[in-house]
Amino acid sequence: MSGTNEQPTTAIAGDPTMRSKMEALIRKKQKEIIAALEKVDGGEKKFFLDEWDRPEKRGGGITGVLEGGKVIEKAGVNISIVQGAIPPSGIKKMKADHASLYAPEGESLPFWVCGLSLIVHPQNPMAPTTHLNYRYFETQNPDGSPQAWWFGGGADLTPYYLFEEDAVLFHQEHKDACDKHDAEYYPKFKKWCDKYFYNAHRHEGRGIGGIFFDDLANKEPEKIYEFVQSGFDAFLNSYTTILNRRKDLPYSDEQKNWQLIRRGRYVEFNLVHDRGTAFGLQTPNARIESILVSLPLHVSWVYNHQPVAGSEEEKLVQALKTPREWVGQ
Amino acid sequence: MSGTNEQPTTAIAGDPTMRSKMEALIRKKQKEIIAALEKVDGGEKKFFLDEWDRPEKRGGGITGVLEGGKVIEKAGVNISIVQGAIPPSGIKKMKADHASLYAPEGESLPFWVCGLSLIVHPQNPMAPTTHLNYRYFETQNPDGSPQAWWFGGGADLTPYYLFEEDAVLFHQEHKDACDKHDAEYYPKFKKWCDKYFYNAHRHEGRGIGGIFFDDLANKEPEKIYEFVQSGFDAFLNSYTTILNRRKDLPYSDEQKNWQLIRRGRYVEFNLVHDRGTAFGLQTPNARIESILVSLPLHVSWVYNHQPVAGSEEEKLVQALKTPREWVGQ
Repeated sequence: MSGTNEQPTTAIAGDPTMRSKMEALIRKKQKEIIAALEKVDGGEKKFFLDEWDRPEKRGGGITGVLEGGKVIEKAGVNISIVQGAIPPSGIKKMKADHASLYAPEGESLPFWVCGLSLIVHPQNPMAPTTHLNYRYFETQNPDGSPQAWWFGGGADLTPYYLFEEDAVLFHQEHKDACDKHDAEYYPKFKKWCDKYFYNAHRHEGRGIGGIFFDDLANKEPEKIYEFVQSGFDAFLNSYTTILNRRKDLPYSDEQKNWQLIRRGRYVEFNLVHDRGTAFGLQTPNARIESILVSLPLHVSWVYNHQPVAGSEEEKLVQALKTPREWVGQ
Repeated sequence: MSGTNEQPTTAIAGDPTMRSKMEALIRKKQKEIIAALEKVDGGEKKFFLDEWDRPEKRGGGITGVLEGGKVIEKAGVNISIVQGAIPPSGIKKMKADHASLYAPEGESLPFWVCGLSLIVHPQNPMAPTTHLNYRYFETQNPDGSPQAWWFGGGADLTPYYLFEEDAVLFHQEHKDACDKHDAEYYPKFKKWCDKYFYNAHRHEGRGIGGIFFDDLANKEPEKIYEFVQSGFDAFLNSYTTILNRRKDLPYSDEQKNWQLIRRGRYVEFNLVHDRGTAFGLQTPNARIESILVSLPLHVSWVYNHQPVAGSEEEKLVQALKTPREWVGQ
C-alpha cells in the first residue's frame, strides 16, 4: 500500500549474527549425524550427498540419502538455506502462527531460513523410525536488518513394536536437554508434539512423540540456539543407542509385514496432515525430491488390517491412541 | 435464519424414482464387475464382501476387496448408499461446484447419495491400474421431494508401461459410450479428466485419462442414467480386454520396481490432491478403510528416481506430462 518502512513497536530485534551461526551449526550437524548413522549401519552403502541450488542465488541445500543399507532401509539427512520474499497472501497465513511478522499492507517480506531435517527408516521392525527438524527463520527490513525471527523444530519417535525403555530414553534425553534451558519447555513441547503428529483420520498418534515447537523467541536468540544444540545432542545420543539395541533382533515375516503396514500410516500423516509437507508441495519450483525423501522405501496398504487382541501389535496401537507421560515431570 | 421452505425459482425437479433405480444399478454392477474381475484373475482368491452400516439408519455399503490374487494385486469394488444432512458450512463449499444447491440461510440440507467406486491394481507391471466411480446425488425439501440433483463420475487408466492400443481402446469405448448420448460429452469429459487427475507437484498426470464429470444435470435424469449405464459397459469391456492382453506378459524385477515407484505417485495423488479422498477423510465417522482401499498393496519411494532417456519408462512419463488425443473427435 504505502512505501514507508515503519516498524511496529512489537518488532523483535534479532541477532544479526545468528544466520551464520545457525547455518554453521546445521552444516556441522549434518556431517556428524551422517557419520554416526553410517557407523551404526556398518554396511558398504554410504550416504549420497546431493547438493542443489535455487535459481537466482536464492539459496540451496544438501540432501543426504542412504537407501538399502544393512541397518537403515532409508534415511534422509537434509539441510537447506533459503531466502526469498513472502507475498502478502503468505504473510496473512503465517501471521496466525507468528504474531511478530510484519510488513506494510500489500508489500512482500524478505525472509531467510535455514534448517536441518532428517528421517530414518530402519530395516528391522523392532527399531523405530525417527524424525528431527531444527530451523531458524528471520524476516528482514528492506535495509537487511532483522525484523521478526524464531526457532522451530523438535524430534519424535515412531516405533513398530513398543519397547518402553526406548520411549523412556528418547523422552528422558529430550527432557534433560529442555530442562537445562527452561523448565517449561519439555512439558509444553511434549504435549505440542503429541498434538501435531496426530493422524486424525485414524484417531491415533503417528508415533510415541518427543518434542515439537514453533515460533520460539521467548529468550535471546543465543540462548535458544544453545537449546537447539542440546536438542541435537539429545537426539543423536538416544537414537543411536536405540538403533544399536534393536538392529540385530530377530523378526518374522509377519512382523516385517506389520512394519510395512504401519509405514502406510506414516505416509498418510506426511501427505494428508503435515503442514510442512503441504507447504512444500504447494511452493512453486520447490525441490519435491528433498521434501518426499521422508517417505519409506517399502510401504504396504492392506484392507482393514486389525491387530490381534492382546498382541504386541495391539499394544503399540493402544500407546498411539492415548499419549503417555514417559518420564516424570 | 428463517424457518420457511421457500424454493428458489432455479430449483430443478428431480425424478423421485431415480434413487431406487440408481441404487439397483450399482448393486447389479458391483456383482457384474466382481464376477468379471474374478474370471480374469482365475486364481483361488475371491472378493471379500464387507457389508457395513452407518448408525441411525443413515445408510451403508458393501466394500468388495480382493488382495493377492493371481492377476490382481489389489482391487476394491465398493458401493455405498448414504443419507444425512449437509450443514450450512458444507452447503457454502458445495455451491461452488453445484449452483443448484439451495437451503434457507442457516439451515442444513437433507441429502441422499449412492455410488459405485472401484480401483484395480494388477500384479503385472504391463497391465494398467484403473479407477471408476459413478454416483447420483440428490438434495431434498423437508417434505422429502427432490430439490437439486446431479450425476458424477467417470473412469480412467493409469499404465506403468504405455501400450498405445490400450489407451486408444479405453478412450474409444468411452467416446462411443458418450457419443450415443451427447456429442459434447466426450471432448468435455476427456479434458476434465486430464485436468482433475493431475499430480500438480510432479507436473504430470496421474495416468492417461479417460472421462470425468460432475454436477451433470443437463438432461432428464433418465437420460443421464442411461449414459451412466453406457459408461459402466464401456469400462468393463475395455478394461477386461486390456487386462487379458497384459496379464501374462513377461517382466523383469526392474520393471516390477518401476511399477512400485509409480504406485507411489498414485498414492501421492490420492492423498494430496484428490478432493473425494480429502472430503472422506475429513468427514467425522467416515469409513476410512473403504476410502483408503484405493491404495495399492505394495508401494515404493526411491529418492530421485529418473527414467533413462529413450527408455519405455521415459516414454510413459512423457505421455503423462502432455495429455494426448487418443481418438479422433
